[in-house]
Amino acid sequence: MRNIMIEIEYDGSNYSGWQVQPNAITIQEEIMKALKKLEGKDVVIHGSGRTDAGVHAYGQVATFLMERNIPVERLPLAMNSNLPKDITIIDAKEVPMDFHARYSAIGKRYIYHIYESRYRSAILRNYSYHINYKLDRSKMMEASKLLIGTHDFRGFMSNGSSVEDTVRTIKSLEFKSDGENIYMIIEGDGFLYNMVRIITGTLVQIGAGNKPLEQIEKILKTKDRSLAGHTAPPQGLFLDKVFYPLTH
Amino acid sequence: MRNIMIEIEYDGSNYSGWQVQPNAITIQEEIMKALKKLEGKDVVIHGSGRTDAGVHAYGQVATFLMERNIPVERLPLAMNSNLPKDITIIDAKEVPMDFHARYSAIGKRYIYHIYESRYRSAILRNYSYHINYKLDRSKMMEASKLLIGTHDFRGFMSNGSSVEDTVRTIKSLEFKSDGENIYMIIEGDGFLYNMVRIITGTLVQIGAGNKPLEQIEKILKTKDRSLAGHTAPPQGLFLDKVFYPLTH
Repeated sequence: MRNIMIEIEYDGSNYSGWQVQPNAITIQEEIMKALKKLEGKDVVIHGSGRTDAGVHAYGQVATFLMERNIPVERLPLAMNSNLPKDITIIDAKEVPMDFHARYSAIGKRYIYHIYESRYRSAILRNYSYHINYKLDRSKMMEASKLLIGTHDFRGFMSNGSSVEDTVRTIKSLEFKSDGENIYMIIEGDGFLYNMVRIITGTLVQIGAGNKPLEQIEKILKTKDRSLAGHTAPPQGLFLDKVFYPLTH
Repeated sequence: MRNIMIEIEYDGSNYSGWQVQPNAITIQEEIMKALKKLEGKDVVIHGSGRTDAGVHAYGQVATFLMERNIPVERLPLAMNSNLPKDITIIDAKEVPMDFHARYSAIGKRYIYHIYESRYRSAILRNYSYHINYKLDRSKMMEASKLLIGTHDFRGFMSNGSSVEDTVRTIKSLEFKSDGENIYMIIEGDGFLYNMVRIITGTLVQIGAGNKPLEQIEKILKTKDRSLAGHTAPPQGLFLDKVFYPLTH
């Protein structure tokens, strides 16, 4: 029995998110189906965390136990041949038995893609958040700096989450601009439910002049979700990388 | 009656190409359906040229005559609200009556996207040509220089085309590299059927070491299609811009 870690790229457009659920097609389920063909029986896989419907990943990570003796370097191609084309295994390695995709993770990086243009983009429709008005990008950058560090991010979490400890550390939050495209790259030790999308929605409102810069400090202080911006749509969000102490 | 020119971005993944044809959904047809709703009757639109099934456009151009007096600056939004999300009108203007999207064009620019990586990309599957071996990028660039200028490109044209004059001028051919992504940007006064895709296929074979650099000159001299490379797949191709003498 080996403990296997896989890295997965996926286009979340056609899925009800990562996690297996009844009456819905999910990414986790598709990967478990592909693995079953290799292993000959059901295999439970553990992801580093869920992603919502429409959210994409360049580097989601999952772990599972495998009995069949397929060389680990052949696993990506073997699994990909059983997977739909919008899910790809891009790496596989054997890891120690106590390694777990979720519990061993020490950080994550997300990219959020904003498309600022008068008209919607046909090609980017499933891969960006279309904003059809001007954003003050330098104001958004200034506001984003107030989020870096260790804070109680409860005000940036969607209601309904059962998490109790809402203190997280944002290690870095950077913006890259390329014409109509704005990429927010955010790295931290962990993220609350919808945290990246609510941060994006809040920064967009600041960039649009609908909220003042000081709103960030007010949300952090009061922990009041209603003071933060809207939850930006899922299709702009990409889970870019999951960090682990040993393997990365 | 006004002569209107529109610029169109589209994701060609779900269409049988640009041109109206029986028993197939095409981009031209979708735009004509959207226009009919505004004009109240059938409107024939003329594109700058066809694109094949799966080929995309950042800036396809079409012209048509319009009777209804909708202000031209409102046309994009009015048309987009009647169009599927993978087709977007990104500009509209009134042009002189003798202006024609196809016959007035003096040049075109295409981008071809190659994704060079061991495993296929889930997110780019419909927007790039996946090559799972190493390409010698500097050799490809060297070979591409031999194509610049005025040549008879008959050897780079798919059979079955009825075009007689096969002399074209390639104004520029550049490569941009960004990690696993290679973008070929090619501009010329016009392109033969499948010319960009056959040029790509030939350069890929040169980059893979399967054809020598001198093959380019041999194809140009002999005009023999069988000496050129394969036709690279449609999903890597983007019609980027159409050039006109007055408007651009």
